[in-house]
Amino acid sequence: MSYTIRQLAALLGLEFQGDGARVVTKVGKRETADDTTLIFMERAQPGALRAERERAACVLAPGDFAPPEVNVIFSEHPKLDFAKAASWLHPKPKSRGTRHPTAVISPDAEIGENVELGPYAVVEAGAHIGAGCILHAGVFVGQECRLGRDCILHPQVVLYPGAQIGDRVVLHAGVVVGSDGFGYVADGSRQWKFPQIGRVVIENDVEIGAGATIDRGSLGTTRIGEGSKVDNLVQIAHNVEIGRHVVIAAQTGISGSSVIEDHAVIGGQVGFGDHARVEQGVVIGSKAGILPGKIVRRGDVYWGVPVRPLREYKRLNALFGRLPEMKAEIEALKKEIAELKRALRK
Amino acid sequence: MSYTIRQLAALLGLEFQGDGARVVTKVGKRETADDTTLIFMERAQPGALRAERERAACVLAPGDFAPPEVNVIFSEHPKLDFAKAASWLHPKPKSRGTRHPTAVISPDAEIGENVELGPYAVVEAGAHIGAGCILHAGVFVGQECRLGRDCILHPQVVLYPGAQIGDRVVLHAGVVVGSDGFGYVADGSRQWKFPQIGRVVIENDVEIGAGATIDRGSLGTTRIGEGSKVDNLVQIAHNVEIGRHVVIAAQTGISGSSVIEDHAVIGGQVGFGDHARVEQGVVIGSKAGILPGKIVRRGDVYWGVPVRPLREYKRLNALFGRLPEMKAEIEALKKEIAELKRALRK
Amino acid sequence: MSYTIRQLAALLGLEFQGDGARVVTKVGKRETADDTTLIFMERAQPGALRAERERAACVLAPGDFAPPEVNVIFSEHPKLDFAKAASWLHPKPKSRGTRHPTAVISPDAEIGENVELGPYAVVEAGAHIGAGCILHAGVFVGQECRLGRDCILHPQVVLYPGAQIGDRVVLHAGVVVGSDGFGYVADGSRQWKFPQIGRVVIENDVEIGAGATIDRGSLGTTRIGEGSKVDNLVQIAHNVEIGRHVVIAAQTGISGSSVIEDHAVIGGQVGFGDHARVEQGVVIGSKAGILPGKIVRRGDVYWGVPVRPLREYKRLNALFGRLPEMKAEIEALKKEIAELKRALRK
Repeated sequence: MSYTIRQLAALLGLEFQGDGARVVTKVGKRETADDTTLIFMERAQPGALRAERERAACVLAPGDFAPPEVNVIFSEHPKLDFAKAASWLHPKPKSRGTRHPTAVISPDAEIGENVELGPYAVVEAGAHIGAGCILHAGVFVGQECRLGRDCILHPQVVLYPGAQIGDRVVLHAGVVVGSDGFGYVADGSRQWKFPQIGRVVIENDVEIGAGATIDRGSLGTTRIGEGSKVDNLVQIAHNVEIGRHVVIAAQTGISGSSVIEDHAVIGGQVGFGDHARVEQGVVIGSKAGILPGKIVRRGDVYWGVPVRPLREYKRLNALFGRLPEMKAEIEALKKEIAELKRALRK
Repeated sequence: MSYTIRQLAALLGLEFQGDGARVVTKVGKRETADDTTLIFMERAQPGALRAERERAACVLAPGDFAPPEVNVIFSEHPKLDFAKAASWLHPKPKSRGTRHPTAVISPDAEIGENVELGPYAVVEAGAHIGAGCILHAGVFVGQECRLGRDCILHPQVVLYPGAQIGDRVVLHAGVVVGSDGFGYVADGSRQWKFPQIGRVVIENDVEIGAGATIDRGSLGTTRIGEGSKVDNLVQIAHNVEIGRHVVIAAQTGISGSSVIEDHAVIGGQVGFGDHARVEQGVVIGSKAGILPGKIVRRGDVYWGVPVRPLREYKRLNALFGRLPEMKAEIEALKKEIAELKRALRK
Repeated sequence: MSYTIRQLAALLGLEFQGDGARVVTKVGKRETADDTTLIFMERAQPGALRAERERAACVLAPGDFAPPEVNVIFSEHPKLDFAKAASWLHPKPKSRGTRHPTAVISPDAEIGENVELGPYAVVEAGAHIGAGCILHAGVFVGQECRLGRDCILHPQVVLYPGAQIGDRVVLHAGVVVGSDGFGYVADGSRQWKFPQIGRVVIENDVEIGAGATIDRGSLGTTRIGEGSKVDNLVQIAHNVEIGRHVVIAAQTGISGSSVIEDHAVIGGQVGFGDHARVEQGVVIGSKAGILPGKIVRRGDVYWGVPVRPLREYKRLNALFGRLPEMKAEIEALKKEIAELKRALRK
């Protein structure tokens, strides 16, 4: 898509300076920008923007240092406004409405208007695919699954039977939704599988990264709330409830029945024991570990295994690094006391 | 499937009270149960079961608190008996014996009786698929693979050539079995691949979670023993030997040539160095790390990086949290000694 | 392939003893070797090799202890020379040049000479597949991808549009290359996706393990340098730069814009914060954590969360294990001081 600087500024609700009629066709990096590229500068210094050096069509930047010769849209939040502009300049692909002849669609599936089906996509009986969805090559949609409108399923995505997917959901290559949860009961000699017959619901505007796995509920429901974003190779176990607009970075694992409330931000490689709860807006640092049943209270950033408030974690970590000194101090104190004893005995 | 309460009690070898002729068709949660649902209560309190509140057909529960109006099968191990009942009420799907016309089966493959082959499944030359197996859409079975009876391979499972799979094995979507192990020898300027030409054997009744990867042996064999259960996104390296009825939770990684003996239970995100050994029945907590060559002795629960017996881990962790106090105590002792010295000098 | 002992010794540039005309057809383990097998012994003791016990055709071993009746190629680096010999005895499979009739190849794709295309492989418009490549069943190559010569893509590999792959690259089953990076900007109520429209480049002779995911750059490029080896289920985020001949073990995650320089060796389950840098040749132990922006200096081995030089890590870890003794010593010192005070007061 292309917009003039004037149009972009209007869409963003921002002021601009310079050539409002200049056409912008893409976002990019400053180093490789050309004369139709929008770039951004987040924490620019006076003098950082120099008219003679800028090849970009326009810069999104705070307003207080821009030389008048440079086209600037003035923004207090340049990265955010850049992301917004990118969503207009590079909109998500639209369905072409084509069905590859090799796609295997059950006659009992319901395919909405303008759905694009790639080669070797499979849609089983009773499934419903909402209007405008794109199912890329090799996507498998099991029986009785339900997809909302305008979803994009990248190649090799697998939806087990019964998975419920909202509108505008993006599932990257190899994502698995609705696999059996991991629950067994030992009888002393072997494992009996606990029933894994529940539901899985992924709400509107969720995006899930390549290779992530989302198990169905055992008896209840696994749910990922509206607008939440999940990175590659994340594991979400049975009966987990993830709120709205949660962000979860790569390779994190969330054990059964844990709850992550709205707007929480979870780092990479974090591990959750089962039945844990992370309250609204909490930030959990990468590689942290949350014990089973633990409630992580709102209003703080947490770190470590097991998690502690960041300030405490930092303090303990610093002291950990000073263990040799502490050990030496104890030794020195021992000596001093021995000397004191000798002195007293005299 | 459906059973009467009397039939279920007989199958479980348990006593019951109430309407033995009542039909049960499914297991479920208490909150959403209806009049053909079996539920369970594990640690119920007197008064917890109230006739007027129970909508379920029947409750599996300890016997000492049930009001006489509720249908109860009396169990000392309600969760275990519930899992058993679920295995009869919700049996694993049976093969329909259908072959989708798009399945590509080598004329040199041997397909047993009543095998179900989904769309776009591929079975290469020399492979043997045992009777009753289900290969879902997009499954790939390489040359000379051998599957026993009644296996279920979910969509997009990949078996590299030569993989050996027992009876009743379940592989969830995207599992990879028999990929090359990760072994290289550096010559100072580049890496030479150590040969990865060994075998991989998965014994009877193993279940492996979505996206898990199991490498073949380098020269020897990678083996997963009978009845073991492996969760999503677990990595099992070349030449690993996993015993019988082992349970391994999500995202754990087991390095080359490590051994996990029978009935061990391994948490999530655990990491094993190579040539480690976990003895029979050991429990390893989530996120633990086992050093290369370490032997983890039977008879205990282990935790931490590197692993320690749980009691020791807890004690050390508690002391870690008290480092600031220890530091303060050392400072206080220093002052006291300085005062003592002054006092002595007088 | 088969070689005589004399031929192998010549290829390796090494001396041998025994029957130079003996034919070797494979590498193997000592325990299961037969009379055409090459084995190796790395740190053999005098007497370890006994003529009457060796069934192998030939042993790669240091020269100083071999009895004269055994066929030996003398090597100072037996494991390395064994890997080299294996690369000749068990060469990578060559393309058969066949195209399965079910492969869906865009008429606008460019397929080099002697390319092998498995069942249900998909190659989209504008893609270029170099001569000699093998694309196994279910591989997806998106628009405008470019593969060099003699690559092997195992089943279900997914290349997003525009991925650039060098020569002789091996991608194991389920690898995803070029998925969107994980970048969002919160506006207080929802997440806006930061544009993920950059490139991904995988250079010559790279091998990537099953289920690994490599994101494209956001605005720039994600790059994996020549000869680097990446294990199963590794996550490589947007804009990461990996140098040449780097080795990265399973389940490690590398956050956005981090740099790993040439010849670094990274253990399993390591986590990198974003914008970290690991200098040339550094070794990072398994499960380590590197903080965002951290520079890990060359010339050392690092371990722990956050990483420290191994010597320091070991010392701190030992002291951590002695916290109970330190605590007890502090208590003992307190008592001694109390006694000293009492003695002084007298």
